[in-house]
Amino acid sequence: MAATNEGGLITPNTLKGFRDYPPELAIPRERLMETARAVYRSFGFAPIDTPALEYLEVLTANVEPGAEIGKQLYSFTDQGGREVGLRFDLTVPFARFAAQHIHKLGIPFKRYHLGCVWRGESPQAGRYREFMQCDFDTIGTTSNAADIETALVINALLRALGFTRFAIHINHRQLLNGVLAEMGLAERAKLVLRTLDKLGKLDDAGVIAELTSTDPRHAGLSREQAEQVVGLASLSGSNDDILNTISARHGANESVARGVAQLRELLAVAAEAGVPEGTIRIDPSICRGLDYYTGTVYETFLLDKREIGSVCSGGRYDNLAGRYTKQSLPGVGASLGLDRLLAAMEALGLLPKTATPAPVLIVQFDAAYLGQYQRLASQLRAGGIGVEVYPEPRKLGVQLKYADARGFTLALIAGPDDFARGMVNIKVLAQQTQHAVALADLLPSVQAALQSTRPDQPQERSHETAKPL
Amino acid sequence: MAATNEGGLITPNTLKGFRDYPPELAIPRERLMETARAVYRSFGFAPIDTPALEYLEVLTANVEPGAEIGKQLYSFTDQGGREVGLRFDLTVPFARFAAQHIHKLGIPFKRYHLGCVWRGESPQAGRYREFMQCDFDTIGTTSNAADIETALVINALLRALGFTRFAIHINHRQLLNGVLAEMGLAERAKLVLRTLDKLGKLDDAGVIAELTSTDPRHAGLSREQAEQVVGLASLSGSNDDILNTISARHGANESVARGVAQLRELLAVAAEAGVPEGTIRIDPSICRGLDYYTGTVYETFLLDKREIGSVCSGGRYDNLAGRYTKQSLPGVGASLGLDRLLAAMEALGLLPKTATPAPVLIVQFDAAYLGQYQRLASQLRAGGIGVEVYPEPRKLGVQLKYADARGFTLALIAGPDDFARGMVNIKVLAQQTQHAVALADLLPSVQAALQSTRPDQPQERSHETAKPL
Repeated sequence: MAATNEGGLITPNTLKGFRDYPPELAIPRERLMETARAVYRSFGFAPIDTPALEYLEVLTANVEPGAEIGKQLYSFTDQGGREVGLRFDLTVPFARFAAQHIHKLGIPFKRYHLGCVWRGESPQAGRYREFMQCDFDTIGTTSNAADIETALVINALLRALGFTRFAIHINHRQLLNGVLAEMGLAERAKLVLRTLDKLGKLDDAGVIAELTSTDPRHAGLSREQAEQVVGLASLSGSNDDILNTISARHGANESVARGVAQLRELLAVAAEAGVPEGTIRIDPSICRGLDYYTGTVYETFLLDKREIGSVCSGGRYDNLAGRYTKQSLPGVGASLGLDRLLAAMEALGLLPKTATPAPVLIVQFDAAYLGQYQRLASQLRAGGIGVEVYPEPRKLGVQLKYADARGFTLALIAGPDDFARGMVNIKVLAQQTQHAVALADLLPSVQAALQSTRPDQPQERSHETAKPL
Repeated sequence: MAATNEGGLITPNTLKGFRDYPPELAIPRERLMETARAVYRSFGFAPIDTPALEYLEVLTANVEPGAEIGKQLYSFTDQGGREVGLRFDLTVPFARFAAQHIHKLGIPFKRYHLGCVWRGESPQAGRYREFMQCDFDTIGTTSNAADIETALVINALLRALGFTRFAIHINHRQLLNGVLAEMGLAERAKLVLRTLDKLGKLDDAGVIAELTSTDPRHAGLSREQAEQVVGLASLSGSNDDILNTISARHGANESVARGVAQLRELLAVAAEAGVPEGTIRIDPSICRGLDYYTGTVYETFLLDKREIGSVCSGGRYDNLAGRYTKQSLPGVGASLGLDRLLAAMEALGLLPKTATPAPVLIVQFDAAYLGQYQRLASQLRAGGIGVEVYPEPRKLGVQLKYADARGFTLALIAGPDDFARGMVNIKVLAQQTQHAVALADLLPSVQAALQSTRPDQPQERSHETAKPL
């Protein structure tokens, strides 16, 4: 922890569970965020922002006494004697925001929100007390068109981030709800869901055993009921097979029929909109958010990194802001697991190893030519190429070592003789090769040199998971 | 304030001094931020991020007892019994970050950092308790090249944001320091600066009166000394005139000579790098940061909105992180006043009045064609055009009213007959005109329609301040 040491210095440390983002992490994270924003915007989702601090009462409106999240909340009394807290997610502030402004905003309202949230959890590998959330939602409509669009956005997001090998798993809460209602078990839905959620960890028999347990914490189904429920959740096969089987078994139930129809429409529209076959998979086993979701639910898995869990999840809910307004605000949305994706991309070797956002370093070979170096830099920047000019006229070796360490792609080197001849040298750092080009052709020459250093095109790699950012 | 009202509802409110950003403000703010990031990156500044919460001891390392900032700091004891606080600027976290990581980062190190900071100030018009800072710095070098680049970055930032009518005022602390040292008044520099800082509010005579006051809170100069100091700070004319005058009067002093030489180099390199004549103005009256800066200082004014003060300010400092490390880290940097700029652009009418980030709304004329609408939307998005598909098949009038209210530019309307003919209708909302185009030509047709709605080009407007974002 922070402490004053003998020299009167304060030890520079972050708080436990918090982290800094140095350039090699901040650069790809920022690109992830900008890509996500661009995709959201391209679908007409508008950005909003809300304060980090809120009235404690607003934050805890839906928190049950003793709930974990209540203990994790950072709260305190401010200078004005107000009880305040740091937001622990972006959903609660969005509910407060919607209740406060929806009369001006109008419906339907589509927003995205990228922002940090804070939870005083016990830190563990990959979990931090401050992390970024990246949500998008459509509220004020019950139309299945919004549910369908949610799947299209998830598909567009993952592809824009460079992934091709992923699957969006989709389920509909009304399927299980309908089946349970048929059995006269509607009021036990929560307990059933809680057990079904363990399908990944327990096998079918284990789940059936828990569903039939007479322990009051469990659902207490009959063996036949439990088998029906597990049979539904364990269905596999093609999307059509699964939906046809559910229809044949439970299609007489109105909820089930509506759920199946909505999923069928989703698949049909997604195909027409160009989502590749196999990307969207009907998966009756996914539950998500035990109490909150009421219709379509979504989880997204990287096929080559499934063990990290869903990287984009969400669903449809009946009412966003019932604690703050009497206006019913149904909606549907999902959240991109930005930090989780970043970790996955790092593990898959998809992140460029660089600590500079600019690919070109202009060596300051001779201080008298600083104006020339800056003029060349301006020309390249105007052509869309990031350029750093080394700030000191140090030895060439020192500057090139710096260029290597930071991960620059090219170094431009020019001294008085070069300028006199109207030439500049381009050094391709990874290849340790150097060639002279005419100053008059600088931009196209640098573009060509950068192009030549790009890795092979994706289609030439047989087992590629994704293009690097 | 938040309160539970009679219906058991919690009143949805932000805290006093905090604000929400609805889309019409969040859209231009996000564009400002993205533009700033792109400019920083193009000069090789790398992003970093640090936590919102820090050890209180880290935050207050440089805060003198009783200082205003100490009272404004949001601090509390966390769940683990640690004294923590919300950062009140990005400089202190950068100092802590640099001290902690510089051995791995290496020098020179160039970073930018966009992030919110929190100060419990008395809220007043345009000032909030949570606001965005947008800093860039080069540390680990005393080279004037970094000072020069700082001016180039400010110029590039303002131009990228669409401003042409602005001025970067530059001064050098060594000018006044040298003059005061000549007079044997080096130790009174702070008091002199504090009075000179009032030159905007007081006239020369008022400033001279305060400089010569024998009140111990003032500098207590002789009348002749005060006149020399005010004479220096009040110099006007061309950059050359000012520097020549200073040189002639005080050039024998080494500090003054060095300051003048560095400013001359800055002007020469900036001109060579393409900064337009008149953009950079030597201004011996600017002080900035009474204790902190030691060399070049910068302030930036919008010529048509000078009253809002400097929109980008900074300077050179001798040592960033002396409270946390023995390693000396000299540097230079500046901070873009993002929220101030946003307010100025709003006042100057430079912000587009829109609550949608996508210019095109596809009307859901017939629910059976949802797949077609989404397919058209995908085509346009692939061409770089943002498109929203209305989620419900409501009456055309309702959907067009929504399009107008949100600020869409175009509405695309197509029903069964149109699809049968292979046509779609483009409605230009501001002009209330509509024309049919072939589905096969959709992208170029929409591009042309968007182009036709753009305002006149800047060069056709005589008194324009800036292009809209």
